[in-house]
Amino acid sequence: MPLDPRRTLADLRELASLTSDQRGAQRVAWTPAWEAARHWLRGKLSELPVAVEQDEAGNLWTTLAGASPKAVVIGGHVDSVPDGGWLDGVLDTLAGLECLRRLAAEATPPPLTVRLVDWADEEGAQFGRSLLGSSAASGTLDVDAARTLCSRDGEPIDEVLRRYGVELERMTASHRQLENAIAYLELHIEQGPVLEELGLPLGVVVGTSGVERHAVRFTGQAAHAGSTPMDQRRDAFAAAARLALEVRDHAREGGGVATVGRVEVRPGIPTAVAGDCEVSLDQRHLDSASLAAMLARARQASQRVATEERVGVAWRPIWRIDPIPFDPGLIELAERSVVEVAGRCHRLASGPLHDAAETARAGVPSVMLFVQSLRGLSHCKEEDSREEHLALSVRALDRLLALTLEGASSVPASEILPDLP
Amino acid sequence: MPLDPRRTLADLRELASLTSDQRGAQRVAWTPAWEAARHWLRGKLSELPVAVEQDEAGNLWTTLAGASPKAVVIGGHVDSVPDGGWLDGVLDTLAGLECLRRLAAEATPPPLTVRLVDWADEEGAQFGRSLLGSSAASGTLDVDAARTLCSRDGEPIDEVLRRYGVELERMTASHRQLENAIAYLELHIEQGPVLEELGLPLGVVVGTSGVERHAVRFTGQAAHAGSTPMDQRRDAFAAAARLALEVRDHAREGGGVATVGRVEVRPGIPTAVAGDCEVSLDQRHLDSASLAAMLARARQASQRVATEERVGVAWRPIWRIDPIPFDPGLIELAERSVVEVAGRCHRLASGPLHDAAETARAGVPSVMLFVQSLRGLSHCKEEDSREEHLALSVRALDRLLALTLEGASSVPASEILPDLP
Repeated sequence: MPLDPRRTLADLRELASLTSDQRGAQRVAWTPAWEAARHWLRGKLSELPVAVEQDEAGNLWTTLAGASPKAVVIGGHVDSVPDGGWLDGVLDTLAGLECLRRLAAEATPPPLTVRLVDWADEEGAQFGRSLLGSSAASGTLDVDAARTLCSRDGEPIDEVLRRYGVELERMTASHRQLENAIAYLELHIEQGPVLEELGLPLGVVVGTSGVERHAVRFTGQAAHAGSTPMDQRRDAFAAAARLALEVRDHAREGGGVATVGRVEVRPGIPTAVAGDCEVSLDQRHLDSASLAAMLARARQASQRVATEERVGVAWRPIWRIDPIPFDPGLIELAERSVVEVAGRCHRLASGPLHDAAETARAGVPSVMLFVQSLRGLSHCKEEDSREEHLALSVRALDRLLALTLEGASSVPASEILPDLP
Repeated sequence: MPLDPRRTLADLRELASLTSDQRGAQRVAWTPAWEAARHWLRGKLSELPVAVEQDEAGNLWTTLAGASPKAVVIGGHVDSVPDGGWLDGVLDTLAGLECLRRLAAEATPPPLTVRLVDWADEEGAQFGRSLLGSSAASGTLDVDAARTLCSRDGEPIDEVLRRYGVELERMTASHRQLENAIAYLELHIEQGPVLEELGLPLGVVVGTSGVERHAVRFTGQAAHAGSTPMDQRRDAFAAAARLALEVRDHAREGGGVATVGRVEVRPGIPTAVAGDCEVSLDQRHLDSASLAAMLARARQASQRVATEERVGVAWRPIWRIDPIPFDPGLIELAERSVVEVAGRCHRLASGPLHDAAETARAGVPSVMLFVQSLRGLSHCKEEDSREEHLALSVRALDRLLALTLEGASSVPASEILPDLP
């Protein structure tokens, strides 16, 4: 049974028809629809000579035993955002399923064990905490912080998880699943416009960007739009507008991205100068020092603008994460795979985080492949990729798996085993 | 009984104690508290030799007969915004009351009739339609448009008005009240920072600014804050920020004001580039041509910014009014009055509209006096003015009334009667 990407396309459509409505995919983690998606996945896996188990964090592990217990792991997630797309997370899982089918049909078992993991709750749509299952496995999950979370319906996280066989306090025990992992491979839709702009079906992800996310609040003086001369205003929105334009310049100059996506003005009426304006600032860069420099420039700019506009400014951190570079050796292999399959390759950073960031943080050599997204759309029902590109992506993942197995089995195990933290 | 501004201060405090709570004044038009304020006012008026009547629009007219039926009108309004201040509108009414007391105590009746009008619903807090009573009297009220309005509680306007003895269809019949008016005088708190900045207690208002109020909507493309490179963004908020800063420059250069007070971004989350941003733009100028130029520059800027940012832009008119200049002769008299009382005077435009704008539009020579507001605050319980300034303002209004009566009675009536539209 050779690799057949058409099966993956058929699988994708079948799962979409089972778990979507007219507004899009509804496989939010820890809901019956998510459970139904996994039940369907288990049905597909039951046709293969594999072992399937759910770990302490709710991650679903499928193991195809190889000559060595050392394992190459392919990861994805069937959970979606509400009104989500048909590819995000699921493509990875179902492409991995097709790789398992191809391996299972071979005459001899692979030199290393091959595992497929369906991570639990990558999207964070239920509790507002992304990468829940993979962070439990990597060991970065702060259980004390997680304990305070509630579901979209206001139910405490531990009660929700328990219904799905997960004890919050024991989630990090899932770390054992990574003990034998010598490589982690993940295929994902790009969710951005870069590959489409370049006219390329596939790319190799060199790492995930570091993120600095803050709320920046300017405090001026609300005043009547008619009776307050321009030179006597302390306009909080004008200050925020200036900052938003400056951080954009910083990002262009520094090779990162910066986004002011949330803007709230008070009193927020046409006849009043804004006395108060809070904006979100999300800055990302693949390089740690460059990210720090962007943040420092934004802080300086906010102070200068505040002084010039005679308003106050206060920063409040929302979230941050360091850049996470992927494994140089696997990046090389991934590029070879893409070139073999599609002729050309492009290396790019991932702005969004993915489960691969967690495996990389756990010390498992990791890499990702991106397939072109149409119009860069994701997290919506319009999310799409060309069928021929999806087929190429399944082939590229399979080639990457094959090259990884070859490479890993040709060197002594002592040289390829990472020290897990 | 000579003029005694201390009585006005006592009246102001008495009314505030009757119709305010810990959040401020609650004399919203067409409510029991407003009715109570007017009942209290009628009580004060009952001590004077005057006639009091409510007209078809709900305006309360007090008439002190003079030697001629030709009348000088002093106007104010006891209605307030919710959680309003203790001076806005009421100062005018109660200063007028004190002028009537002074005149009533004189040995002879005044050469012309003197009238005090308490306009109904200046603030528009009940139906969202400012200057309701005065626009009915001036004839600018569009009854068909007004018929569609509802109260804050969702009750149709005609049902609410009927409870207060007003038939919507007959409101414009109140125009007859202006037939004998040869001058309209109004004292008001400035509600802005100009006089305080200049260190002056009083100023003369040369007219009300014209207003151009629009919603400007930029339409770009919502995109992931992490995966969308800066050069591929179509950021609707960035376009709005640029416009907001440009219109500010236009206002400074053109001698007007421009305010972006409402800002709405979609999707409005930290991790998404704004695909859509609508802002309000409120531009004001005392000069009609300058206002038109400011608007034209803003339109041009929005088009240029939209092109550069690769977003769409659409304008939607919200409201507009032409500048309304006050009467040059009355401005001269008002300035004399202020100089006599306070030594120095400043001429300024009013950004907010006032009932005087309606009387001016009706062809009645009109003018306003402003008294300094502390910190420019109004429409809030912190609204305040110094007691000594309030006292000076009552004296200035009384001097203006006296000068107007003198001037009007020294020329033949045929020369001072305006042609009413």
